[in-house]
Amino acid sequence: MSLNLVAINDVHDLRLAPYRSIKEKDLIGRQNQFIAEGKVVLNVLMESQRFALQSMLIVESKLKTLKPLLEHYKPKCPIYFVPQNVMDHVAGFHVHRGILGLGEKILATNLSDFLQKVTQNALLIVLCGISNHDNMGAIFRNAAAFGANGIIIDKTSCDPLYRKAIRVSVGAALKVPYTQGEDIETIVSELKRLNFEIYALSPSASTSLNSINSIQNKALILGTEGDGLPQSLLAKVNTLSILMVKDFDSLNVATATGIALSHFFNLKAER
Amino acid sequence: MSLNLVAINDVHDLRLAPYRSIKEKDLIGRQNQFIAEGKVVLNVLMESQRFALQSMLIVESKLKTLKPLLEHYKPKCPIYFVPQNVMDHVAGFHVHRGILGLGEKILATNLSDFLQKVTQNALLIVLCGISNHDNMGAIFRNAAAFGANGIIIDKTSCDPLYRKAIRVSVGAALKVPYTQGEDIETIVSELKRLNFEIYALSPSASTSLNSINSIQNKALILGTEGDGLPQSLLAKVNTLSILMVKDFDSLNVATATGIALSHFFNLKAER
Repeated sequence: MSLNLVAINDVHDLRLAPYRSIKEKDLIGRQNQFIAEGKVVLNVLMESQRFALQSMLIVESKLKTLKPLLEHYKPKCPIYFVPQNVMDHVAGFHVHRGILGLGEKILATNLSDFLQKVTQNALLIVLCGISNHDNMGAIFRNAAAFGANGIIIDKTSCDPLYRKAIRVSVGAALKVPYTQGEDIETIVSELKRLNFEIYALSPSASTSLNSINSIQNKALILGTEGDGLPQSLLAKVNTLSILMVKDFDSLNVATATGIALSHFFNLKAER
Repeated sequence: MSLNLVAINDVHDLRLAPYRSIKEKDLIGRQNQFIAEGKVVLNVLMESQRFALQSMLIVESKLKTLKPLLEHYKPKCPIYFVPQNVMDHVAGFHVHRGILGLGEKILATNLSDFLQKVTQNALLIVLCGISNHDNMGAIFRNAAAFGANGIIIDKTSCDPLYRKAIRVSVGAALKVPYTQGEDIETIVSELKRLNFEIYALSPSASTSLNSINSIQNKALILGTEGDGLPQSLLAKVNTLSILMVKDFDSLNVATATGIALSHFFNLKAER
């Protein structure tokens, strides 16, 4: 089977519609679609069993260097190739990576189905009020790096399939299993019912991350940096702090996730 | 002594010149000045013994809430206050934090002076080719959080006093001592001469970070994510890896710095 390569030179070609004014559409959302950007992310997307690729848009000057990748994965979707000026005009900014893909969002599994599929002795991340796409992407990247088993995202957090979140995640947003949409109280109740040990990372906690040396069934809750997690929530779960200089503000939430996951990965590696 | 408050309503007022077209000036540089943005960073700047504040620009509607802070530090510089539309027009974008400061860059200490002042048993960070301002800022934030004693920045890295780097550092770029300007070979030679144990973080290293349990005189080299550190450099120093999932690309450089510094902070805390 050969590649479905289609040359386009007209900026008004209707097949380019999904790629038009990308940043404006980032803001209003794309319902059941998302934009993947750059070779690393497209690589993950073509390998994905979970998400389908609907089309690709490539700057013609990059076609030659991307050919081996395309021939390896043989995507069935149309691969549009255009001059750089057409790409930039359609997208509304200079797409210096020169490769975009249109993915199909799959309805995220609901919380109970998600938790049923989670393996025994899972380590889960729970996100509460993470509204910054860079942080969301970076948390997925760390989750993939340290083999977290999944991410539960509360309904006040942002969408991990936002273009920039996917890019910052270096594709991990398309790999790490997640569910999104419940409020944090419901998530905590469900995890308790299933006997998860629940830990919220909080700078004020008196127990430190290092004192935890078991790895079974754990859920780590991370909240937004500014306000932190609500007191009502902290009262219901265990809390953990990362040791640091006393008068310092706090860590970036993605860095805190990385440090916590690295700790648990080391525990596993030691066994 | 009272505050030097000055109302300005004219967008063409010459005293606003340093705040004009901020993003364009970010790109071309400001010689011996830098822009600090937001309350958290201005707080650090007013407390700083190292950097002087030349003026502040505040949206008039924020003046009331900022009054206690200003009266606490009593900066001697002029504090211009303007309507939001004047602020935005002058800056060239919507300054939603509503507070800017113009700082005076102090010539960074040269490498040998810097190293002479470093305390015994110091933990230093060495940055090689860090060109992304978000990463630079995040590395300073982590250095402050975990009490690193200083940062040595090679000449191919970006400026930590770039507006966005300072903001992402939550002011740590104005706190953590650093020196910048030598090439990485010179830095490594100097550190060797002073008997520092030098470790480069590299995903391919066979020794893991966790195996290091001493804390005396250490320098950790971190390089850019894409290309990593040059082989010629890796051959001259010890290398360390952070344990992670086998087929995963690599960590973000700021996250890697956070994990490494947290490890050393824990070692200190245990003693």
